[in-house]
Amino acid sequence: MTHLLQRFIRNKCFPWIAALTFLCASTAFASEGAEAGAHSYASTFLWIAVLLIAAKIASLVERVGQASVLGELVMGVILGNLVLLNIHIFEPVKENDTIAFLAELGVVILLFQIGLESNIQKMGKVGIPAFLVAMVGVIVPFVTGTWLVGPWLLPGLPMPAYLFLGAALTATSVGITARVFKDLGKLQTPEAQIVLGAAVIDDVLGLIILAIVSAIATTGNVSMAQIGIITGKALAFLVGAIVIGHFSAHPLGKAFSKIHTGVGMKFTLAISFCLIFAAAAQWVGLAPIVGAFAAGLVLDPVHFRYFKDPKVISDVKELVGSSDQLLQERVHAVIEPHAHRHIEDLIEPVGHLLVPLFFIMTGMGVKLETMFNGPILLTALGITVIAFAGKIVAGAAAGKGKRKWLVGWGMVPRGEVGLIFATIGKGLGVVSDEMFSVIVIVIIMTTLLTPPVLSALLRRKTA
Amino acid sequence: MTHLLQRFIRNKCFPWIAALTFLCASTAFASEGAEAGAHSYASTFLWIAVLLIAAKIASLVERVGQASVLGELVMGVILGNLVLLNIHIFEPVKENDTIAFLAELGVVILLFQIGLESNIQKMGKVGIPAFLVAMVGVIVPFVTGTWLVGPWLLPGLPMPAYLFLGAALTATSVGITARVFKDLGKLQTPEAQIVLGAAVIDDVLGLIILAIVSAIATTGNVSMAQIGIITGKALAFLVGAIVIGHFSAHPLGKAFSKIHTGVGMKFTLAISFCLIFAAAAQWVGLAPIVGAFAAGLVLDPVHFRYFKDPKVISDVKELVGSSDQLLQERVHAVIEPHAHRHIEDLIEPVGHLLVPLFFIMTGMGVKLETMFNGPILLTALGITVIAFAGKIVAGAAAGKGKRKWLVGWGMVPRGEVGLIFATIGKGLGVVSDEMFSVIVIVIIMTTLLTPPVLSALLRRKTA
Repeated sequence: MTHLLQRFIRNKCFPWIAALTFLCASTAFASEGAEAGAHSYASTFLWIAVLLIAAKIASLVERVGQASVLGELVMGVILGNLVLLNIHIFEPVKENDTIAFLAELGVVILLFQIGLESNIQKMGKVGIPAFLVAMVGVIVPFVTGTWLVGPWLLPGLPMPAYLFLGAALTATSVGITARVFKDLGKLQTPEAQIVLGAAVIDDVLGLIILAIVSAIATTGNVSMAQIGIITGKALAFLVGAIVIGHFSAHPLGKAFSKIHTGVGMKFTLAISFCLIFAAAAQWVGLAPIVGAFAAGLVLDPVHFRYFKDPKVISDVKELVGSSDQLLQERVHAVIEPHAHRHIEDLIEPVGHLLVPLFFIMTGMGVKLETMFNGPILLTALGITVIAFAGKIVAGAAAGKGKRKWLVGWGMVPRGEVGLIFATIGKGLGVVSDEMFSVIVIVIIMTTLLTPPVLSALLRRKTA
Repeated sequence: MTHLLQRFIRNKCFPWIAALTFLCASTAFASEGAEAGAHSYASTFLWIAVLLIAAKIASLVERVGQASVLGELVMGVILGNLVLLNIHIFEPVKENDTIAFLAELGVVILLFQIGLESNIQKMGKVGIPAFLVAMVGVIVPFVTGTWLVGPWLLPGLPMPAYLFLGAALTATSVGITARVFKDLGKLQTPEAQIVLGAAVIDDVLGLIILAIVSAIATTGNVSMAQIGIITGKALAFLVGAIVIGHFSAHPLGKAFSKIHTGVGMKFTLAISFCLIFAAAAQWVGLAPIVGAFAAGLVLDPVHFRYFKDPKVISDVKELVGSSDQLLQERVHAVIEPHAHRHIEDLIEPVGHLLVPLFFIMTGMGVKLETMFNGPILLTALGITVIAFAGKIVAGAAAGKGKRKWLVGWGMVPRGEVGLIFATIGKGLGVVSDEMFSVIVIVIIMTTLLTPPVLSALLRRKTA
């Protein structure tokens, strides 16, 4: 601890923290006067700046070997729960719809980036293990949650309540795992690809389960037609995305390389592609991040010449070429890759702006006071064990030669999908406040405990 | 016209336009279902994509020598007024608060970019002509609007009404002019610097005038204390920004060059700096874009090493160095500048995402139906002449050796500040609906007519 503190002092964090405190004070001051005009965006501007600086301070945990997403999450938890110390300064952020939207856009951009860094061929290679991991990771928590742990820890509830509990435990929220893999530069490992593929599949499975349990909760039974339509839409979307990806990569690449009006056009096409896929996914009932990831996969093989650097290459070629042909080729080989600017490079700054907002807002959504209720906390801990075990077991399905622990832990985080299930169940009157709190605590646990474990596993040579 | 059409066909715009139409249809479809969940951002995602693609199609006017901002504005006017043809598809965009915020953030980012490209020393050199241009450009439209053209074209109104009309004609909205200069690569000319400086000063003058006329309208007179406080806050902000800029450029540059945790930290600090200045400006009553511009000016001398490329440099040095010392130096001289990545490069993609939203939304805010009322339109045209003449005359104050027409026309566009004045006047019951329409038409005229004239002037060798 002293060591950490010393590092922080040596890194000169204090001026930043002081600046942050000052900023918060002025933001609170500014929000008071912000009601004056409809065009007064001052407080939102300031909040974005405050959250970004806070996220960056928090991401210094990188220096002690943690993924920066952990820092951002914990910073969010701290800022969001200052209210427990009677500090209400950050409360307006939680109600700011604009920042909520920017955070959601942030996770969409993140999954788009991760899709861009992934490769549809590579994903195809891990298709079968990913499918198995997804199946096991859905079935085990659903069955144990619904028929074993639910009735045991929360006895006396009607069946649909347990069904919702089980369903809420199924869907992996891939954002956190993907950030850890990305932070530590391990996105290209087979394990990362399996987790990404399995998370997409398990979102589809979760969607089908949600349709079934909702139908049972409302009408007492479920029609095959309903399940068929939902499954059909989701599959049509995924198959459509893969087909588009397969057939459009080459023509899109050609089209992109023909665009000579600067990077603006390429950026616009790429980001629009991402947003359209995200919206389409949401429209068929999937999470928008699944669509954004698919968009990234489809655009992956597309890259384009960056029109600033080629001038450098030709200049250097001219300089060197006059003296030595072989040397020219070697110099060319070194510089050439830098003449292409991938879409990733253009998306990166947008990611820097928006992605930290998502994680810090996720952290801020954590209500620590839900943990103060002893019985609920104990129940939640029991169910959390199932939530962990169900996904870690699924890692065993990753197949021979894969780091099964890594895959299993990668599938652990639950997030917005579980929360959506719980919210729908609450709306139907099936999920009680008590059970809702339990689900929230499970999501918190899986979210906060996974990054450090994943970091540790990724640092080990074998697992 | 045929020529233009042929170019458009040759540029293969049709598939894009077809795609856009399809997208709009699906967006409209999606918005219907969007009410379902609070977390349903699908329609906003789609709208952003639609607006960005529309803006990019419109920016193809660049190929016929127009600034792309003109294309974006006109595209906005078209999309926003399709409702006149009974096409209601774009109406939800106008009410989308998130997109309105992103547009505002866009113009803030634009002025930050322009501040980054400007230079505080250069701005200082044009300080006196900029001040003179601002003074003349405020006094002439205010005096002629209030005491001559107002009473003549709209007789029989109380004095405060004319005061508000005159005040609404004072403040230049620099976004449009700055985009034209930027689009055509002329931001570094003395004329561009004069216009930028004068626009900042004239925003301050406008603020003081607003305080005076509001006080007169409400209480019948005005206290010097009120004027003093407002002037003091605005001046304190500007002087503070310049002082911070003068003293912080060097240490900030050093701090930035010491940050080794990748581009994320630098990006975050730069964008936070921009947002804080924008918010601070709004807090003292100035337009946020004035703050963003000041932030860009302050950060201007700061640049930093981009940590991807230096590896290339050392590789090339090693390759070449083994053979020829002189050659190594020459190769180094060619590549070295590319090892630095300026803040501008990091902000650019964010600009590509947000800036077009501002101009297309500005266009969409234009209500063509206000022009259908003959008498109002005629009155508005008369006042528009004053609005043009008042600023073009101001260009004469730019001093010897400057292209006075260019400076004068650069000051013509009015925008959100004029609209804010009119809105406040309307709120006080001083500005009638009729006069409000007149002011809106004046703003439309100055906004839409300026870009083509400026483009033409910039293309001429002398003016």
